[in-house]
Amino acid sequence: MKIGIDIGGTNLAAGVVNDKGEIVICDSCPAEVEQGYSAVLDKLVMLVNTLRDECRREYLNDPITSIGCGVPGIVKDGVVINAPNLFWKNKPLAKDLSERTDLPVYLVNDATAAGIAENRFGASKGCKDALMYTLGTGVGGAVIVNGAVVNGAHGVASEFGHTLVGPGFYTCNCGKRGCLETYSSATALVKGLVHAVEEGVQTALNLETATAKDVVDAAREGDPAALKAFDTMVDKLGLSMANMIDILDPEIIVVGGGVSGAGDFLFDALRKKTAEYTTYKEFEPTPIVQAEFGNDAGIIGAAYAGEYL
Amino acid sequence: MKIGIDIGGTNLAAGVVNDKGEIVICDSCPAEVEQGYSAVLDKLVMLVNTLRDECRREYLNDPITSIGCGVPGIVKDGVVINAPNLFWKNKPLAKDLSERTDLPVYLVNDATAAGIAENRFGASKGCKDALMYTLGTGVGGAVIVNGAVVNGAHGVASEFGHTLVGPGFYTCNCGKRGCLETYSSATALVKGLVHAVEEGVQTALNLETATAKDVVDAAREGDPAALKAFDTMVDKLGLSMANMIDILDPEIIVVGGGVSGAGDFLFDALRKKTAEYTTYKEFEPTPIVQAEFGNDAGIIGAAYAGEYL
Repeated sequence: MKIGIDIGGTNLAAGVVNDKGEIVICDSCPAEVEQGYSAVLDKLVMLVNTLRDECRREYLNDPITSIGCGVPGIVKDGVVINAPNLFWKNKPLAKDLSERTDLPVYLVNDATAAGIAENRFGASKGCKDALMYTLGTGVGGAVIVNGAVVNGAHGVASEFGHTLVGPGFYTCNCGKRGCLETYSSATALVKGLVHAVEEGVQTALNLETATAKDVVDAAREGDPAALKAFDTMVDKLGLSMANMIDILDPEIIVVGGGVSGAGDFLFDALRKKTAEYTTYKEFEPTPIVQAEFGNDAGIIGAAYAGEYL
Repeated sequence: MKIGIDIGGTNLAAGVVNDKGEIVICDSCPAEVEQGYSAVLDKLVMLVNTLRDECRREYLNDPITSIGCGVPGIVKDGVVINAPNLFWKNKPLAKDLSERTDLPVYLVNDATAAGIAENRFGASKGCKDALMYTLGTGVGGAVIVNGAVVNGAHGVASEFGHTLVGPGFYTCNCGKRGCLETYSSATALVKGLVHAVEEGVQTALNLETATAKDVVDAAREGDPAALKAFDTMVDKLGLSMANMIDILDPEIIVVGGGVSGAGDFLFDALRKKTAEYTTYKEFEPTPIVQAEFGNDAGIIGAAYAGEYL
């Protein structure tokens, strides 16, 4: 059994994951990050102890062998280099948590954790070379090459969200203009709707209250401004995926996160657009598929991070 | 000792490479690709036999242990999937050459071979994660992750030249518009000069005869149209490299090919532009350095391909 912990700015969600990728015991608590690193570390130790005790009672012959943490930020060699939502910089979390629990501890970025969950048990299972895009408030990524995650020299690999894919129509949180995240995230869908209306395109949606899901639903019904925002998202995502095929030529591309819930309407358009932008059209198209796990991916992938480092 | 062969549309260049990366014996012959695959295979066998005989005489205690071939096209698992300049499709070259020489044979793309040469003996020596851009008539690439080349599911990884980086001002050989190759190759520099003049920018160069080197030299002297073409090249190359840092975060980026001969004038501008486009500016910039090998890279890298597959 392995423990996976999804460390978020609001909640710490932890689970005991079995070798089928099922969360058999779970627990969570508020992160209260404003209390500082040591306080959060104490909570993580408590979560681990609680899960371990329960695991001992329920699965006597299958003890916890390791812990993995998914962190919303840059991690490198067991150290959280920077996690703005946690207010952490250069925190040796793997070492600290390992000393307090006597278990090996592995750290990965949270989007990478989702990619690991899909690769170990989900949509890209069995593929040694796979990419994952997570389309949520932002755009996260995971790169798996030859069965291992690519973390990079500074821990900033797989940040697809900040690759530049066009001129941009608003400035990204990172300060750049033209990031994929400003075209293809949930945030970008809503901003894209407003932008289309500003350019004179009609919509039946209420600009004050429309969510990303509203934009997708309206696009599906043919709402002109929503369709424009949706097409822009698909265009840039397709361009990014075609570029990834020219760079890494993965066996499969998995798409998760809230926006991926748009289903076939999104995936059909995305496959078509990626094919248009693909250089070598004589091959079978690289499969672009929906993620199988939802919110659990963070815990499951974190639990199995050690196999991918 | 290892044999490396650089298979080109015009010439077959082969060499015996020692464990310091030196070509100690070399030979070549016209490729005469129009005579077909079998005829070229015969020539390759002859080259290998000649080199092996000479190696036996000169380096009695250091026999040839393997052969590597760099191929101008798509290769996968020892098969040349498509090499337009050779008129080859789906040729099992590794198997065929191995049967005729009784030596293990490894195939790689020719740009990948250059990347291997630099990684094993040159500018990126000692780096497990490295990229190489080759700026020539086209733009080639090599991706090394965790000490192995990334070749991809279809053998089309590392085709940086066809990643889309802008709207484009002419159509690429591949049929797409906006490929890096149409901004940052030698060809693109010359076309960029013409394009700038068409847009009304002045030049002292002769548009009929100007070469890529002329454009760089004139840009260095401040020629307005040449400078515009040069700046465009640097802008798109910098964008591509910053995107690569967001995707793979390599330890180092090596730049080779004829255009890289522009030296500091190019590299200073390129480092500055890449830094501008880089997402995480708080880290030491990823080194962007000139390749150490010239034309020999093809033979040296091919010889050592087996260590990277």
